[in-house]
Amino acid sequence: MKEQELMLVEVKAQKTNLTALINKLQQQSITEGKKVAFSASLLAQGFGTIGPYNDNRVTNLVFRHVITNIGGAYNPQTGGFTAPVKGAYHFELHACNKDGSGPAVMLVKNGFQVISVWGQKASFISASNGATLLLNARDVVYVRLYEEYSIYDNEDHLSTFSGHLLFPM
Amino acid sequence: MKEQELMLVEVKAQKTNLTALINKLQQQSITEGKKVAFSASLLAQGFGTIGPYNDNRVTNLVFRHVITNIGGAYNPQTGGFTAPVKGAYHFELHACNKDGSGPAVMLVKNGFQVISVWGQKASFISASNGATLLLNARDVVYVRLYEEYSIYDNEDHLSTFSGHLLFPM
Amino acid sequence: MKEQELMLVEVKAQKTNLTALINKLQQQSITEGKKVAFSASLLAQGFGTIGPYNDNRVTNLVFRHVITNIGGAYNPQTGGFTAPVKGAYHFELHACNKDGSGPAVMLVKNGFQVISVWGQKASFISASNGATLLLNARDVVYVRLYEEYSIYDNEDHLSTFSGHLLFPM
Repeated sequence: MKEQELMLVEVKAQKTNLTALINKLQQQSITEGKKVAFSASLLAQGFGTIGPYNDNRVTNLVFRHVITNIGGAYNPQTGGFTAPVKGAYHFELHACNKDGSGPAVMLVKNGFQVISVWGQKASFISASNGATLLLNARDVVYVRLYEEYSIYDNEDHLSTFSGHLLFPM
Repeated sequence: MKEQELMLVEVKAQKTNLTALINKLQQQSITEGKKVAFSASLLAQGFGTIGPYNDNRVTNLVFRHVITNIGGAYNPQTGGFTAPVKGAYHFELHACNKDGSGPAVMLVKNGFQVISVWGQKASFISASNGATLLLNARDVVYVRLYEEYSIYDNEDHLSTFSGHLLFPM
Repeated sequence: MKEQELMLVEVKAQKTNLTALINKLQQQSITEGKKVAFSASLLAQGFGTIGPYNDNRVTNLVFRHVITNIGGAYNPQTGGFTAPVKGAYHFELHACNKDGSGPAVMLVKNGFQVISVWGQKASFISASNGATLLLNARDVVYVRLYEEYSIYDNEDHLSTFSGHLLFPM
């Protein structure tokens, strides 16, 4: 009987270990398996320029042509990206301008400017910037146009906004 | 004997759980462990300009200097990147031009233009764009030069094409 | 007793499997769970231009304004990023210039130039490049200014250096 008792202890210990492992792996897959990535270009169709505006308005840009939106965290009606989980997210902006008013946009997190990109006031200018941000769940990131600058796009998708989750925290 | 029967049931249940867990983890590592990333610059050596061409030819660019090619999905003989698994892939293009003909290239997926970058027709222009694409296994992505535009590179590796798997789907 | 002996064999086999699985998962989480990502802009505060210098000095740029530094691999006192583990790392440079001397910087790995970005000698030029590098643990990556070129930044954070671990190797 002693052998059987020892085996019973062993079986219970293994059950505890296995249950703990399964629980841990389930928690990890909830966060680590999160798949979030988007890319969008400025215009839904055709071609055109947004701006320049000189009247103190705040112009949040809405990138209406969705190239990719895995996880659905980017909203092509508002232009806003809402972080679904706390984590490190990489964003990049590529702004094109055609008419000489210069492309200039900023990346905005919860209403505050984070990085910007300015381009020369000449025709057919392309300018880019990007950054990795630590976001809390429900933080909102979007792109805003500077006053007196403009951004151009056409069906070649020259002006784009992209982002993706690097890893949850 | 009743205790022994219960223990037998328990041991069998644990075996089933453990086997299922091991199988699931093996499947995950086949897809989630996939490591795919490349960077290449245009010229194998020296310096030079490709284009401008005005004769309706299709010029797929071959970035011949391999900086990184983990997973071997980028082919430096053809310029094509072939997705090894279905997933979200991030690509970026950086095009430099020296002689004033302007850098202009497009990212092409299975023969269709996805995004583009145009630069000013002035000397020493650098222009960039990037996007995340959802690719099926065996989808092919490459970079194409626009007619009447050109791209320059030298041993400083100014014109580059990079991509990597963000996550499998 | 025969049934009990078989069960004992079974219990021992499961224990071996479970222990091996737990060990393997612990090793994976040490490398795969590694979280490394940084973004920094050039100036700690205010605005200004670094360069142009024409005296053969080597000017490693120190991006002093830390936007993100998860894992602490980027050193904002030296400008150097030191790889904590062997792996594939993605880097990007965005260089702005205001005064017409042109932005031109290179990405340097262990003292050797890897890629570069040159911008036009005109005012308000933004130029970008990026690449994925395979680094060994303790490899050092930083950004160096070209002679006769300059880089500008202000509190809009126009000139940035970012990098992150894609996956360990």
